[in-house]
Amino acid sequence: MKIIVDAAGGDYAPHEIVKGAIKAAQEYNDIEIALVGKKSLLHVLLGKQLKKLNISIIDASQVIEFHEHPMEAIRKKPNSSIVVGINQIKEGKGDAFVSAGNTGAVLCAALFSLGRIENIERPALASLVGLNRSSPAILLDAGANADCRPFHLLQFAELGNIYAKGVFGIEKPRIGLMSNGEEETKGNRLTLESHALLKKSNLNFIGNIEGNDLARGVADVIVTDGFTGNVIVKTVEGLGDSFIKLRQSKNSPHGNHRLQGRALLEDVGLGFLVKGMDFREYGGACLLGVKGNVIVSHGRSQATAIKNAIRLAKRTAEGNVCRLIWELNSNEQVI
Amino acid sequence: MKIIVDAAGGDYAPHEIVKGAIKAAQEYNDIEIALVGKKSLLHVLLGKQLKKLNISIIDASQVIEFHEHPMEAIRKKPNSSIVVGINQIKEGKGDAFVSAGNTGAVLCAALFSLGRIENIERPALASLVGLNRSSPAILLDAGANADCRPFHLLQFAELGNIYAKGVFGIEKPRIGLMSNGEEETKGNRLTLESHALLKKSNLNFIGNIEGNDLARGVADVIVTDGFTGNVIVKTVEGLGDSFIKLRQSKNSPHGNHRLQGRALLEDVGLGFLVKGMDFREYGGACLLGVKGNVIVSHGRSQATAIKNAIRLAKRTAEGNVCRLIWELNSNEQVI
Repeated sequence: MKIIVDAAGGDYAPHEIVKGAIKAAQEYNDIEIALVGKKSLLHVLLGKQLKKLNISIIDASQVIEFHEHPMEAIRKKPNSSIVVGINQIKEGKGDAFVSAGNTGAVLCAALFSLGRIENIERPALASLVGLNRSSPAILLDAGANADCRPFHLLQFAELGNIYAKGVFGIEKPRIGLMSNGEEETKGNRLTLESHALLKKSNLNFIGNIEGNDLARGVADVIVTDGFTGNVIVKTVEGLGDSFIKLRQSKNSPHGNHRLQGRALLEDVGLGFLVKGMDFREYGGACLLGVKGNVIVSHGRSQATAIKNAIRLAKRTAEGNVCRLIWELNSNEQVI
Repeated sequence: MKIIVDAAGGDYAPHEIVKGAIKAAQEYNDIEIALVGKKSLLHVLLGKQLKKLNISIIDASQVIEFHEHPMEAIRKKPNSSIVVGINQIKEGKGDAFVSAGNTGAVLCAALFSLGRIENIERPALASLVGLNRSSPAILLDAGANADCRPFHLLQFAELGNIYAKGVFGIEKPRIGLMSNGEEETKGNRLTLESHALLKKSNLNFIGNIEGNDLARGVADVIVTDGFTGNVIVKTVEGLGDSFIKLRQSKNSPHGNHRLQGRALLEDVGLGFLVKGMDFREYGGACLLGVKGNVIVSHGRSQATAIKNAIRLAKRTAEGNVCRLIWELNSNEQVI
């Protein structure tokens, strides 16, 4: 299995991306990693590891910056790490692509180069929310589609259902619809109509869930529009950041700050919750509904987050999620 | 100043409501409290405190339950604590009303009995989000209007602006629009159009903010639709609950669980953040845009939450928020 990693995207690229790739290559010896970026620079950064580990380099001379307009950027920069990386997947030279670069550009490149799976109107970002001890919930759409119609939410539910089965091995994933009240009559126009569609579907739909259910583990798949999903994911992430930062500033003036903070939180039994609020933990969100496995990482990703994103890419590819969506779809079971 | 308190609404009514009222009467000796509920029962519960403290009883024989349809309930139950309480405000016999009962019924009763302030199309629930050390942010709408138009969000901004000035004494409140990206071009249709309106207004509009800004204290007023607002407030509340519960279950098998948990969290420097995630801290949300001061408390409110809701009612009445909205509005400055 070969994971293609964008070495030029993200606030800490290329150094932390390379570090993360090295960590992943050391940890998972059943994968091959290809780093996409400026060849000469990556050569220097990898140094001796290039020969030791199962890591290769794919040259890409251009970089798409965060402020660039996604569509324009991918057109203007055919040699950017994002475009080159996605094309590797398209050409069957890699099993999954990981990028911490401009999310919009990754989505555009994936949509235009890999293409949507037939009948999937709106590919969605599936984020993992690990606020519960048992297993993380899959929240989608986490930001790809700000405005949605009820039919899109039904498709997100189908996509999440396949992901929960394929990657997490959950037999009959519980699908919850994020709303502003648990009663069927609660919601905005979008969720009220979506509720009716979900109820009629063959999914294991458990009804509306609310914000305070996130940490309760009541659902395996949480369905919402990309606007609300993005706000939820960032709210949780922001609170996680505060906990981690507070711990750093207060009790750990020296030494390995994050670890000390973590240890202390573990001591008081809060470790797993703060871990679940930390975006580094899962490393990224999976773009579901395109013809290929694409993991979008946080722009602030450092080595650990990248390593975890590579792990997620590996699991996603192993789960054959893309193929499952495709197959179910052609069997007309998806829509 | 007289605060009217619904003694029959909420999961822990009437016992905890009465306890909370007693606490508030002991703490704030410049207020008079009137408890609305079954007279004979309240007499027994208040016991000797009735003579000692500045607390009176207003008889209301009916109770609106949580499952009841708001509009139907307030029509069918004219002697319910909610209808009787709101009418006290209407008749000028009280300065603010506090209820932990059926939120929909409180909103309906307030709208129909007190009425909207002229030109305020959609009264909104203003929740306090205290995730920052300095002062809490006012988030609105926290749930009164699931579907909104851009003009409503502009009015929410105006309402929040007045609240921040009147109650928190902030001279030039920073108004942020909750969105899925900080750039002006990010958002759904609603926030993109709202952004344009807010930019043209005379408010101190700081632009879009994101979920991870909640704990950063970047805005004094956070404007959003009632669906998103409700999801945010409940997400934060749910995480707060998890922290509090975890602390209870793990390290404090006996004794005063919450206090022990709190103390430990304070020790590790996390106290204020968890406090800010706790719905009990502010005790309720203020309904802005109706002709009267109405505080909606959480259904799960116990004594401390009710005491804090009474404190919020007191501050809201002292701040003359209702009058300020009315005046500004008639000066055509609000819209």
